[in-house]
Amino acid sequence: MLRHILIFNAFCVFFAASFSIVKPGPKYPPTKGAIWPRPREQTKSDSYFKFIPDSFTITEKGQTCEILKAAIERYTNVLKNTYLIADTHSKKLANLNINYPDSNDTDVNYKGILQELQVTLSTPCETYPHLDMDEKYSLDVAAISTLTSDSIWGVLRGLESFAQLFYISDGYKSVLINGTQIVDYPKYKHRGLLVDTSRHYHSMSTLLKTLDALEMNKMNVLHWHIVDDQSFPYQSDVFPQLSQAAYDPTLIYTAAAINQIVTYARDRGIRVLPEFDVPGHTSSWGVAYPSILTECYRFGEIVGLGPMDPTNNMTYKVINDLFREVQDRFPDKYLHVGGDEVELDCWRSNHRIRKFMEDHNMTQASELHTLFMTNVIPLLGDRSKPIVWQEVFDEGVTLPSGSIVQVWKNTEATEMVNILNSGHKVIYSSSWYLDHLSTGGDWAKYYEVDPRETVNGYVDKAKEDDILGGEACMWAEVVDDTNMISRVWPRASAVAEALWSGYSNTSPNDPYRRWHFRREPDFEVSCRLEEHTCRMNRRGVRAQPPNYPGFCITGN
Amino acid sequence: MLRHILIFNAFCVFFAASFSIVKPGPKYPPTKGAIWPRPREQTKSDSYFKFIPDSFTITEKGQTCEILKAAIERYTNVLKNTYLIADTHSKKLANLNINYPDSNDTDVNYKGILQELQVTLSTPCETYPHLDMDEKYSLDVAAISTLTSDSIWGVLRGLESFAQLFYISDGYKSVLINGTQIVDYPKYKHRGLLVDTSRHYHSMSTLLKTLDALEMNKMNVLHWHIVDDQSFPYQSDVFPQLSQAAYDPTLIYTAAAINQIVTYARDRGIRVLPEFDVPGHTSSWGVAYPSILTECYRFGEIVGLGPMDPTNNMTYKVINDLFREVQDRFPDKYLHVGGDEVELDCWRSNHRIRKFMEDHNMTQASELHTLFMTNVIPLLGDRSKPIVWQEVFDEGVTLPSGSIVQVWKNTEATEMVNILNSGHKVIYSSSWYLDHLSTGGDWAKYYEVDPRETVNGYVDKAKEDDILGGEACMWAEVVDDTNMISRVWPRASAVAEALWSGYSNTSPNDPYRRWHFRREPDFEVSCRLEEHTCRMNRRGVRAQPPNYPGFCITGN
Repeated sequence: MLRHILIFNAFCVFFAASFSIVKPGPKYPPTKGAIWPRPREQTKSDSYFKFIPDSFTITEKGQTCEILKAAIERYTNVLKNTYLIADTHSKKLANLNINYPDSNDTDVNYKGILQELQVTLSTPCETYPHLDMDEKYSLDVAAISTLTSDSIWGVLRGLESFAQLFYISDGYKSVLINGTQIVDYPKYKHRGLLVDTSRHYHSMSTLLKTLDALEMNKMNVLHWHIVDDQSFPYQSDVFPQLSQAAYDPTLIYTAAAINQIVTYARDRGIRVLPEFDVPGHTSSWGVAYPSILTECYRFGEIVGLGPMDPTNNMTYKVINDLFREVQDRFPDKYLHVGGDEVELDCWRSNHRIRKFMEDHNMTQASELHTLFMTNVIPLLGDRSKPIVWQEVFDEGVTLPSGSIVQVWKNTEATEMVNILNSGHKVIYSSSWYLDHLSTGGDWAKYYEVDPRETVNGYVDKAKEDDILGGEACMWAEVVDDTNMISRVWPRASAVAEALWSGYSNTSPNDPYRRWHFRREPDFEVSCRLEEHTCRMNRRGVRAQPPNYPGFCITGN
Repeated sequence: MLRHILIFNAFCVFFAASFSIVKPGPKYPPTKGAIWPRPREQTKSDSYFKFIPDSFTITEKGQTCEILKAAIERYTNVLKNTYLIADTHSKKLANLNINYPDSNDTDVNYKGILQELQVTLSTPCETYPHLDMDEKYSLDVAAISTLTSDSIWGVLRGLESFAQLFYISDGYKSVLINGTQIVDYPKYKHRGLLVDTSRHYHSMSTLLKTLDALEMNKMNVLHWHIVDDQSFPYQSDVFPQLSQAAYDPTLIYTAAAINQIVTYARDRGIRVLPEFDVPGHTSSWGVAYPSILTECYRFGEIVGLGPMDPTNNMTYKVINDLFREVQDRFPDKYLHVGGDEVELDCWRSNHRIRKFMEDHNMTQASELHTLFMTNVIPLLGDRSKPIVWQEVFDEGVTLPSGSIVQVWKNTEATEMVNILNSGHKVIYSSSWYLDHLSTGGDWAKYYEVDPRETVNGYVDKAKEDDILGGEACMWAEVVDDTNMISRVWPRASAVAEALWSGYSNTSPNDPYRRWHFRREPDFEVSCRLEEHTCRMNRRGVRAQPPNYPGFCITGN
């Protein structure tokens, strides 16, 4: 008997480790009306209101402007469309003779029809979003709800949160919203997505859809890496020949197209940060202007054109005149001038450039990079400040104090610490390269990153704030209109929440917990991301499934 | 001076290794009218013909049938649409005042207008595609072209090749085709794609589009893994309650929907192979019929339902009646009965099942798997033969001789050799799990696999032919309508060419070459895949970019 008990116990321990029960249905049932990214302060009650389009209005109680009016119209349509999806699906079910039980109007928690959202903006609208914009808002959901903010940008964030609080009831018969109080503001002020329109051209439709998605994720920067080695789709009026290096004469961005993007983004509180990457990644400039690039030599023969020629005045003339035009088209106060992966060895290979180095007592090719940036940065004038990739800092290029350096190569603290201690500011991207794919729903690895936590203890506390934020980067070697939206979303949503809410603000910053989170994200976060993904799909952003089996009802 | 020369030489060697020249434009310029998968025998001349829709007809010179008539209409539309895309783009360019030089009618290679394709089918049409169908065809392109085959299935493959020979001229002013002779037939006869509609539901639109893509890649099996643990979207008339485990009552496949898929596939020479995976992966069956599943115990408590109960007659009754219905709906001569990942430990944990094992002198839980399959396989009767996952073989289940075993876990020879030496046949999938993602254009790792080469030297040469083919598998944990098409194509195209043309048939089977191919695929193959990817996009299959920067003109 004892032997049997022992064997049985051994069995049990063995079983505990060796089989898993897979239940039918989604592994992570979507939440109902949970906001992504998670608000900083939120209370939610069980009482709820019903949304009926004709009974509801959004009204302006304070300052107003075209951006606000457009936003009210936009979000009114979002709510109407949610209502329509519920109604359509409910009818489909009725046709199948299926009548789910629905929330009951006699339910003690039911508080009646939602009547109004009063929007109180206390100061006049700013005309364009900027690095230091105020995005804070307060929201109180009741039959008569209120949204207040000191800034149009805060109002936009609050309207998005308000829209996300609505959910479709289990029986698809009504659209509901719970009584909720929110005070919300971002942890980081630069929360961006880099898109690359050189490796593949992205249609206007894809770029506008990307802006819709950024708005839904409270991201505020579209970093537009517009040209690179492979193609030059930016159509310049000053140098029309540059876009001879577009893949095709139709695959370009005209001044009008750029204006449409900038305006559409501004209306959503999103900055459009243009990047013209120099002096490397510039082969496409050489189609029209070969003389501004460096001839690279190998075994005494020219083997092709490399980075821009830092010794040629024409180089700076082209950059200067182009930057004037870019500044006219992009109102942002920053212009990203690149500076990554400069092929210093091409410079070294060119006898004329070596002669120039000798004549100017340069011993390192990186001094040419310093020379180049020292000449280029002043070309920006007063209208924009530079952002550069980390190599510009790493190669010892002297930068004006307070410059912004984008870190993409190092995930550990050292690089950021060095930049911060040199008096510069940081945008972090190293952990957020969306072109690095791995099997499964790979968003958790993006989610548990917090750049300020990374440097915590290695720099003065005050310096941590000089990490302004970060960007998810979608380099486009294998991405075009066919897969851009589904590959970016909801993976970039993980970055959005990391930057708005902060992983470490909600979870202890414990290495084991981070390790574990990557393998098995918190149930609450996964369920909320399921809802958010379906929400994006319902609003026309065809985000891929985040993680595990499941489904969305999108009205299609 | 010598010192200078030495330094210069050192420089050169150093430069040779340390910088790369990136030229503007696509890395792999698409080919013009190259066929994917590559025909077994093809000659192509420089002479070419011009396609003008109104001047061209496809005519039936031999046997005919509805399948052929529908195919002629389909491909006529493909050609017209190619013409339309060229014409539309040419007008867009003209609007931009761009007039590319175009091919010249006085060119010595220009041989006039393409007039006719005569299709000679020498035997009456079969009604449904099958494992041993004849897919061989001969094609001769001239002003009056000819396509001949002994089989309707060969005609379909030939029409696809014919359509792929057309290309748009550089100036987008004409659609051209070169004089070409082809004799073509597949290396492997089972060339499939597995789709999984349980982890995520796929819409009819996605499934039909998938069939379009299979046709374009000369793949001939849609392996439909229709139900699994998570959901049961198959709507049964015999057991209507089973689809209570659909994710939603609207997310089902009705008899009519299945018939539409089967007919659409048949018209394209594609078999639809249904899989009802038993006895594991069956949680969803338990929503309506919990008694046919096994109660799993842990520490003396029931913790959930595991695999089907092999000791319960009701289990076999449900399977039997369902299989009758499935056989009515799916005309294929094979039915995949799964058998993978059976949680034997759940069986072991159940005291009633342990008692049953004792009573029947069983010492291993795998004997229950044998019992189960021994009971299930005869239920197929004469109407279909079984296909099973490799575990059924691995766990020693006795299979009828000549059974087909699908290998998914082992990439080396041993597993296939054991199966072949036991007198069974193999479908290979281990290298072709499309849910396993890696960074970049990751198709080359699929391309250089040839299952017969893998076993070469380890089994009798005659046995190699018992490797019938293979399947790319798109498990759907993170795949739904948003990303299914773009994630599968053109990655599955690599599998398609491996199975039709054979990597080892065109390239020496040299491990270093394979290793190198994965890192840097052949220029010719890459350029051809670029064209094929654009071709799929032009025909409505939104395949993602295969590899490197580039672009497609698709008429959108």
